[in-house]
Amino acid sequence: MKQKAAVTRRSDCPISIALELLGDTWSLLIVRDMLFMGSTTYNDFLNAGEGIATNVLADRLQRLECGGIVEKNRDATDARKFIYGLTDKGLALAPVLLELILWSASHEQTAAPAVFVRQIKRDRASLLEDIKSRHRKK
Amino acid sequence: MKQKAAVTRRSDCPISIALELLGDTWSLLIVRDMLFMGSTTYNDFLNAGEGIATNVLADRLQRLECGGIVEKNRDATDARKFIYGLTDKGLALAPVLLELILWSASHEQTAAPAVFVRQIKRDRASLLEDIKSRHRKK
Repeated sequence: MKQKAAVTRRSDCPISIALELLGDTWSLLIVRDMLFMGSTTYNDFLNAGEGIATNVLADRLQRLECGGIVEKNRDATDARKFIYGLTDKGLALAPVLLELILWSASHEQTAAPAVFVRQIKRDRASLLEDIKSRHRKK
Repeated sequence: MKQKAAVTRRSDCPISIALELLGDTWSLLIVRDMLFMGSTTYNDFLNAGEGIATNVLADRLQRLECGGIVEKNRDATDARKFIYGLTDKGLALAPVLLELILWSASHEQTAAPAVFVRQIKRDRASLLEDIKSRHRKK
């Protein structure tokens, strides 16, 4: 079992703690790719469209793994490859991402599909249930 | 009126756009201080407890202002001072922060008061209404 590094926190505020784990421009995109795009491999994340650099991706995946948000396992069909997935703690970030989508879609020009935005507003509980059950089947 | 710099975005994904504005370890702490602590001055943010450096604070306030999240006005009682406040766009980040609090409180050791966590879970709509009306009165 991987040993976690001792963490020195700047405060015990829950928002501060979340930002120390996730407060950068890339980590939540990796979580997004796992949650909504079915991404599981290093190349999936690399090709997600925002042009993440390989060293940044490697660093963020490691940080997400250390933070207990992502788990990394050998591919059953090719032991040279790794398959990344969300832990329950990572999956529990879905509501944060849905709120970020709603906020952006309301206040910025984005490509958020109107039908998805409506679904988040009107039927969030079943949308979250769908996301969870899809991931737990994997 | 302040002119906004032209923005080159890495993608038009709503989550990516939100992270380009807010994806760092400090910006949402400043929003937190305004939303929940009633902070309005540079010194309020400086003394919030996480030890933000003055240059980082100045940079983040400017970025939040450029992003239309924070507005800065001269203090009516002392024209040498500035008063910072959330715009409607900034106020609309409240649900994102509430979800971050819930996530952290469930998965990390935090100082989130149990009574507040319960309130977010059970009575989010009226909590958000309270936050909004408190800010609009200002």
